[in-house]
Amino acid sequence: MSKSPVTVLGLGAMGTALATAFVTGGHPTTVWNRTPGKAEPLAALGAAAAGDVAAAVTASELVVVCLLDHDSVQETLAPVAAELAGRTLVNLTNGTPAQAREMARWAAGHGIAYVDGGIMAIPPGIGTAQAFLLYSGSRPAFDTFAPALELLGTPHFVGEDPGLAALHDIALLSGMYGMFAGAFHALALVGTERVPAAEFAPMLRDFVTAMAAGIPHYAHQIETGDYASGVVSNIAMQSAGFTNLLDTAESQGLSAELLAALGPLMARRVAEGHGAEDVTGIVELLKR
Amino acid sequence: MSKSPVTVLGLGAMGTALATAFVTGGHPTTVWNRTPGKAEPLAALGAAAAGDVAAAVTASELVVVCLLDHDSVQETLAPVAAELAGRTLVNLTNGTPAQAREMARWAAGHGIAYVDGGIMAIPPGIGTAQAFLLYSGSRPAFDTFAPALELLGTPHFVGEDPGLAALHDIALLSGMYGMFAGAFHALALVGTERVPAAEFAPMLRDFVTAMAAGIPHYAHQIETGDYASGVVSNIAMQSAGFTNLLDTAESQGLSAELLAALGPLMARRVAEGHGAEDVTGIVELLKR
Ligand SMILES: NC(=O)c1ccc[n+]([C@@H]2O[C@H](COP(=O)([O-])OP(=O)(O)OC[C@H]3O[C@@H](n4cnc5c(N)ncnc54)[C@H](OP(=O)(O)O)[C@@H]3O)[C@@H](O)[C@H]2O)c1
Ligand SMILES: NC(=O)c1ccc[n+]([C@@H]2O[C@H](COP(=O)([O-])OP(=O)(O)OC[C@H]3O[C@@H](n4cnc5c(N)ncnc54)[C@H](OP(=O)(O)O)[C@@H]3O)[C@@H](O)[C@H]2O)c1
Repeated sequence: MSKSPVTVLGLGAMGTALATAFVTGGHPTTVWNRTPGKAEPLAALGAAAAGDVAAAVTASELVVVCLLDHDSVQETLAPVAAELAGRTLVNLTNGTPAQAREMARWAAGHGIAYVDGGIMAIPPGIGTAQAFLLYSGSRPAFDTFAPALELLGTPHFVGEDPGLAALHDIALLSGMYGMFAGAFHALALVGTERVPAAEFAPMLRDFVTAMAAGIPHYAHQIETGDYASGVVSNIAMQSAGFTNLLDTAESQGLSAELLAALGPLMARRVAEGHGAEDVTGIVELLKR
Repeated sequence: MSKSPVTVLGLGAMGTALATAFVTGGHPTTVWNRTPGKAEPLAALGAAAAGDVAAAVTASELVVVCLLDHDSVQETLAPVAAELAGRTLVNLTNGTPAQAREMARWAAGHGIAYVDGGIMAIPPGIGTAQAFLLYSGSRPAFDTFAPALELLGTPHFVGEDPGLAALHDIALLSGMYGMFAGAFHALALVGTERVPAAEFAPMLRDFVTAMAAGIPHYAHQIETGDYASGVVSNIAMQSAGFTNLLDTAESQGLSAELLAALGPLMARRVAEGHGAEDVTGIVELLKR
């Protein structure tokens, strides 16, 4: 059976990785990028480089878009709404749930089947076992093109509400950015004493990984609002220890701004009588 | 060969886990806690509950202390300096490098061999394969008691400067707290749309773990100051995506305070001409 044609709009680091996965996976692949030079490596692999967006869109039933942001997607697609009619648009550009819902309404108004997506991988991870992608929106359109989309990474269809992939995506990225903030602070801190990266970094990776194993437990506490059962690291003790973290940064000449926000939240939970509970209780203070 | 006697001062969640590991590991174990009731479960396992700190200290050549903080350690040990003379004090209380160095000076002044330590585990992890502990200070004292200390978790001796264990400890905890901040934000965010924890939490754990695999790469960038080689996720793109993270929190009624500090740092790197580089470059803005 011949594989379905795919069009990829956007050949930044990520769009290039996506298009590469399609073309090496045997799909007739058409590519377009605002700056045309970026299509050259793909053309060398056998992709067709379209001269304009309209030509790119009309080459395939499946159009995957991966640009910088929502504005660039709107700017690029608004002029080709008529050409997109009757096709499936899979938008893998990072965006908010509200932007995804807006795109879905726009697509519906033009007879375009819409699937929103989030890519949980960096470009070199595309097509590897670790990569996964979140999808939401039109289930029939997703099902039709699942064989092609599977080439990018494990697909997770999270619901027909088109905003749900973005919600999951943004939440996962929030987790990642917190981890990055902590890791970058940690690496800068040991750097002040010239601790070799090769010694410390694997320790940090392994410790963060071991502590991340607690996430399902914390998730259960946050879902149920029960922060008081089975506590092994009470927040009064953690709040005291956090002061040491801030003092150490200060005396090593490092701004603790990436982590500082935790301090007042922990202190407030302790002051409000939750000192014997778990640190997860701080989420109660984030709700508006 | 009979095992060396050990004294544990402090029977909070952690001190209890440490004492339990020693007593079940076959060491004659003497325990003391300010609130005496906490010694009962240990006594039931075969530990001797000392009536006061001086009696506890004189029972063993190795005295392990694990209290809330530096102040409580000073308060507890100052009156028994004479009894500690000639023994080894291993301080597993969380503290700063400066506090560790101060304790080492105090110990030296009283003829006490001093080892400072950091526990990289939660109490139920003590004695398991995942647990590791950092030590610094007197190498001979550490070597003498390594067989007992190994019962707690894998020991890493990081140097004779007594402050180094605390530096590593605080750095690792900084990584953990960043990860927690991100994870708690993420869990609160999906909670606003009632995404089941059982569905989302394993995804979050796996994604954070996959992204933590990049830490050695980031460590190399931060150590060398080269943020421009082999970039696959440029900071201009990440800065744009970060706006989506903040907007999503806002529209879901969640304060983004745990992560917000990253935004201005990324924006500043982009504004200063580093938009094509990696996000790790923000550490340059943390140095004072
Ligand atoms: N890289 C990652 O690690 C990663 C991971 C997951 C998700 N993502 C998401 O994937 C998307 C692309 O990221 P990337 O890494 O490929 O970024 P990138 O390398 O910076 O590429 C940006 C792309 O957007 C295009 N673009 C920007 N403004 C445009 C406009 N107004 N009109 C048309 N095209 C425009 C650029 O075209 P020119 O070449 O003409 O400038 C380029 O193709 C983003 O939404 C990002 O959040 C990236
Ligand atoms: N739990 C963890 O996950 C964990 C992990 C790594 C490191 N640590 C570190 O281990 C240490 C103990 O933590 P924990 O979890 O055991 O805390 P905890 O359960 O809150 O216990 C605190 C201990 O400190 C004692 N204490 C407090 N103030 C004192 C004072 N002024 N004089 C004498 N004793 C005093 C308490 O005695 P009373 O019973 O009389 O109040 C209790 O034994 C901390 O430095 C912590 O940072 C803990």
